Amino acid sequence: MNNLLVAQSGGPTVAINATLVGVLQGVRASGKVDKVFGAKNGIEGAINDNLLDLNELVRDTQALDTLTYTPSSALGSCRFKMKDWREDEETYKKIIDTFKKHDIKYFIYIGGNDSMDTVDKLSEYCKVNNLDYYIMGAPKTVDNDLNLTDHCPGFGSAAKYIATTISELERDINVYDVPAVTIVEIMGRNAGWLTAAAALARVNGGSGADLIYLCEKDFDNDRFIQDVKDMLAKKPGVLVAISEGIKDSTGAYVSDQTSSGAVDNFGHKYIAGAARALEQLVRDKIGCKVRAVELNLMQRSAAHIASETDIMESLMLGQKAFNGAVNGETAKMSAIKRLSNDPYRVEFILVPVSEVANHEKVVPMGWITPEGNDVTDEMMAYLKPLILGETNLKYENGIPKQYRLY
Amino acid sequence: MNNLLVAQSGGPTVAINATLVGVLQGVRASGKVDKVFGAKNGIEGAINDNLLDLNELVRDTQALDTLTYTPSSALGSCRFKMKDWREDEETYKKIIDTFKKHDIKYFIYIGGNDSMDTVDKLSEYCKVNNLDYYIMGAPKTVDNDLNLTDHCPGFGSAAKYIATTISELERDINVYDVPAVTIVEIMGRNAGWLTAAAALARVNGGSGADLIYLCEKDFDNDRFIQDVKDMLAKKPGVLVAISEGIKDSTGAYVSDQTSSGAVDNFGHKYIAGAARALEQLVRDKIGCKVRAVELNLMQRSAAHIASETDIMESLMLGQKAFNGAVNGETAKMSAIKRLSNDPYRVEFILVPVSEVANHEKVVPMGWITPEGNDVTDEMMAYLKPLILGETNLKYENGIPKQYRLY
Repeated sequence: MNNLLVAQSGGPTVAINATLVGVLQGVRASGKVDKVFGAKNGIEGAINDNLLDLNELVRDTQALDTLTYTPSSALGSCRFKMKDWREDEETYKKIIDTFKKHDIKYFIYIGGNDSMDTVDKLSEYCKVNNLDYYIMGAPKTVDNDLNLTDHCPGFGSAAKYIATTISELERDINVYDVPAVTIVEIMGRNAGWLTAAAALARVNGGSGADLIYLCEKDFDNDRFIQDVKDMLAKKPGVLVAISEGIKDSTGAYVSDQTSSGAVDNFGHKYIAGAARALEQLVRDKIGCKVRAVELNLMQRSAAHIASETDIMESLMLGQKAFNGAVNGETAKMSAIKRLSNDPYRVEFILVPVSEVANHEKVVPMGWITPEGNDVTDEMMAYLKPLILGETNLKYENGIPKQYRLY
Repeated sequence: MNNLLVAQSGGPTVAINATLVGVLQGVRASGKVDKVFGAKNGIEGAINDNLLDLNELVRDTQALDTLTYTPSSALGSCRFKMKDWREDEETYKKIIDTFKKHDIKYFIYIGGNDSMDTVDKLSEYCKVNNLDYYIMGAPKTVDNDLNLTDHCPGFGSAAKYIATTISELERDINVYDVPAVTIVEIMGRNAGWLTAAAALARVNGGSGADLIYLCEKDFDNDRFIQDVKDMLAKKPGVLVAISEGIKDSTGAYVSDQTSSGAVDNFGHKYIAGAARALEQLVRDKIGCKVRAVELNLMQRSAAHIASETDIMESLMLGQKAFNGAVNGETAKMSAIKRLSNDPYRVEFILVPVSEVANHEKVVPMGWITPEGNDVTDEMMAYLKPLILGETNLKYENGIPKQYRLY
């Protein structure tokens, strides 16, 4: 018997279950796998032998369809950082024990670059010890910061949420005829891709965010205040989009004055409050009405406004990773290669996971305007196809249907 | 010639343009009105003779359809408080001058209780001075706090956004297996209707918000911390919904420590930060992971998740107000009378605007549980029909189409 284990890790997205469904569809189409198990809470479920029987839990096509559009990791997630096997072989042995106990030959891990680090380390361990397992990664991250893939599953849906929300906020903030600044804080510690999506609100002729500051470029308080003043001279309602991770030229986070200083298990600093810091700055320096808005958890969980392009690609990436595994590949991640923008065409490829793990793909400086307060046409051309299409989400009693595995 | 003037006022909603469309449809169906003007920025447009020709600007059915689903006041809004005519007759005379100049006989004002105060004062002025104008109100407010109407246009859509968002956040916060508290702050200074909608996330079997605190009931920090601890004993991910306007037993706002202290033109205190204050409290008293989320402007502008029930009722209320005006009514507001919950049936009525102006309808104490941390079945039965139905919103280039009048 050749069974398969699948798990999800890292921060939630609205497309991560579509990738899981892609794996399940691959299994059903291939006939090469008997049982599919899901590890609860990512790699922790593999370590602790905490598995769900997905053949039992997701039986019919309707369940697969609903799961596709259910946000956040249906199998749960974790932020467990694997040590090198030479430092902590015990953990690796526990995983292999789980594999052996359940006749698992294939393992697919859906996640971001921390998860790809796990795939990398685990496949290296298997290789060094001549263990015959096929360990594959499937990408996921709203941040869109994975190396070797044109873009990341979950990003297009978050971008569609941001573009839609900014276009709605534009209507909202322009009803009064008095000067007012609204500062929208968007996720992104080191990569400004999501913030750039604020420009997409312009696709139908709106102004979208009037000023856009990505975390890749040094942020300057004085230049920001001048930009806002210049824009207020043109129109009363000014909409600003900023990355949560904007920093000044010394590398200090703008949010630092309101940050809690806490760090997560990977040592990432917990950042919140750049918009609030700038709200205070505008109040002090300009004195007009000003409001900070955080898109917070909504931007990564708003499945009701998911991009169908994103969902379908996420599903294909799950299938691609699965097909790789059953064809004898290991230590690879499924990825997207863009062939053209217009018409939008992509192909699905496999890339070495070692070149994805622990890398971050940030926005090229050339895609930010020289003034540092907007994005270029290249960025728009890159982003536009990713938000296309609306999903076939079903509603029940007025809210979207969801499928829960536990 | 008998022309009509229509205007919108107060805070934006996603249904306020549906009511405008209802007026325009009424005009087209009646044949009793020649020209329709829209006053820019509410009553200020009438005072300053700043009008838009809506016969020109909204010509075809497609424009009407797109405008129906466009969020926020397409005519702009204001927060202008009319003084009594005995104190400031000049303003009233300017409005009458505008009426005369454009042969306006009917005026329909779409707004909340401050706008109904304007309708009340202006119609009283016309009556006292024997001026033959028909001044009617059409309701609007996400807060759902207008007197004499079962519920308010805009509320059902905001409630659908909140129910959907809470159900998505429930998925998001439950992926990790560690204790974490998420506190969602929802609009409502004095009326907790919107916060109650957090319970609607339960309609399909979810837990929705685990704890719900409305601003009608005194908020007690110690009881809150005990409630959260009790809930954490049952499950790791605890979701809390609070009204922005929660106050302690002395009437002091929980948010006061982070409030800017600013007030708007109506003397309403600007409140923001109750969730942030409680976030700090949980960090201090419990010490677990905790996050504040504000639904902020999104809850009143998220047209992409509008309730079709709300949009259609909002449209009917515009028609009802228009029909009243051309049938010789004045000083009335169109309103909804609920006939039954299941099946959901309503009728549209006219009510005296003087009994709406300057009143606030808060949540009955009997619809909050005795513990003060949830809502009752009566509240659920009241809310459930209001979020039903999805709109026929059109998308273009991946984001919702909008119709702009200027």
